[in-house]
Amino acid sequence: MAQNNRITLYDLVLASGCTISPFVWRTKYALKHKGFDIDLVPNGFTGIKELTNGFSDRLPVIVDDGHWVKDSWAIAEYLDEKYPERPMLFFGDSHKILTKFIDGWLWATAIRPWFTCYIKDYHDLSRPEDHHYVRSSREKLFLGGRTLEESQAGREQRLPLVPPQLEPLRLLLKDTPWLGGKSPNYTDYCILAVFLWTASVATIPPLHADDPLKDYIDRGFDLYGGLGRHPGMHNLFGLPKPAAQETSA
Amino acid sequence: MAQNNRITLYDLVLASGCTISPFVWRTKYALKHKGFDIDLVPNGFTGIKELTNGFSDRLPVIVDDGHWVKDSWAIAEYLDEKYPERPMLFFGDSHKILTKFIDGWLWATAIRPWFTCYIKDYHDLSRPEDHHYVRSSREKLFLGGRTLEESQAGREQRLPLVPPQLEPLRLLLKDTPWLGGKSPNYTDYCILAVFLWTASVATIPPLHADDPLKDYIDRGFDLYGGLGRHPGMHNLFGLPKPAAQETSA
Repeated sequence: MAQNNRITLYDLVLASGCTISPFVWRTKYALKHKGFDIDLVPNGFTGIKELTNGFSDRLPVIVDDGHWVKDSWAIAEYLDEKYPERPMLFFGDSHKILTKFIDGWLWATAIRPWFTCYIKDYHDLSRPEDHHYVRSSREKLFLGGRTLEESQAGREQRLPLVPPQLEPLRLLLKDTPWLGGKSPNYTDYCILAVFLWTASVATIPPLHADDPLKDYIDRGFDLYGGLGRHPGMHNLFGLPKPAAQETSA
Repeated sequence: MAQNNRITLYDLVLASGCTISPFVWRTKYALKHKGFDIDLVPNGFTGIKELTNGFSDRLPVIVDDGHWVKDSWAIAEYLDEKYPERPMLFFGDSHKILTKFIDGWLWATAIRPWFTCYIKDYHDLSRPEDHHYVRSSREKLFLGGRTLEESQAGREQRLPLVPPQLEPLRLLLKDTPWLGGKSPNYTDYCILAVFLWTASVATIPPLHADDPLKDYIDRGFDLYGGLGRHPGMHNLFGLPKPAAQETSA
């Protein structure tokens, strides 16, 4: 049992101290959902293995009264299994399976294109000691050898292609305040984590000012005392509308 | 309480007697999931209002011991509410909300393109007395005034575009036998209904012979004594592979 109701979370942060990893973001929300106070240990992209005494080379990692758990999905399952008397994150197998589906859809639809639109910002906003690692790992692993600058170039033309693709999410949220129904659950935290990641790096907005998703995203960022309102986050809304040009569905 | 465990279902059928409506298909599966025997009343596309004494102009409609219910989603909710002691179709709000999401995704991804690929088959396979209605309603409401023949033309070029788009469903089914987890639930019936609709009209196959979805679809069609194996159904697997040509993700 977490001592004094506190769980330690190893965070992955930018120079501003703002969380960047969508996986850490959803773990932060999951811990709050379960009613825990969080002892945050901020870290950058490098030195994770040493920091966690060899336990993991990726974050998030939590330590619950001496018990270490890694991987955001495994952490969520651990929290429900260990603390079933607290508000649940998941409700049965279908819920888990379908959460993976909508999360995979949103990554393919939003993070995939936004990644190249903000990859230079992502680098510039990271801690100075992480710059070399961020550049070399991202250029090699995710950008097929292209530079951060080449990848981000022309984003003004690419950004307007994304909002129309989010229509299925808008449709779903017409009929319900949360994907969890009357209150949010882990599905919402997965979806919100995509927008939280984006707000941590987006120096120009990816969504239009009048996007109906704004209501949901604002309510999500405001949860748990404004958990998503960390200093250093950027405004998601204000992408200019294409002038007299139809968007394609 | 259903007398003698029987519920009446007004079916929407082709000349072969095979169900065509995906909404009726999922209601058939839902009734079997809840353990009912079905008294099927077969109908075509026309005369539904008269047949149901003005209760509905669309199918499915069920009659449970004199109580009439219409709309496949409302029927599923009715069955769970009225018979909670029988196996449940839904598990909480998130399950319903996310089922709508994956169902909407599959309609946009598969039924939308397949509709025009099989719309002439759909007409030709319907009951002769429905031909006029099917042609005029589909050409006016769904095809923007194009004829069935114009719409279906060129399908050999369009069909190969669909299977690569189903990859998110394949990925999901790598880790679970059913979208319900260890056993199927209403999510599976919604997904299977799309393929059951397609099998009812597809005179040439829409999926490749080695599609990993075949295992799931076959198991789904075999449920409840081969509920999806009605005479008149077509083989879904056998679409020729593009020769030495990469498919795009």
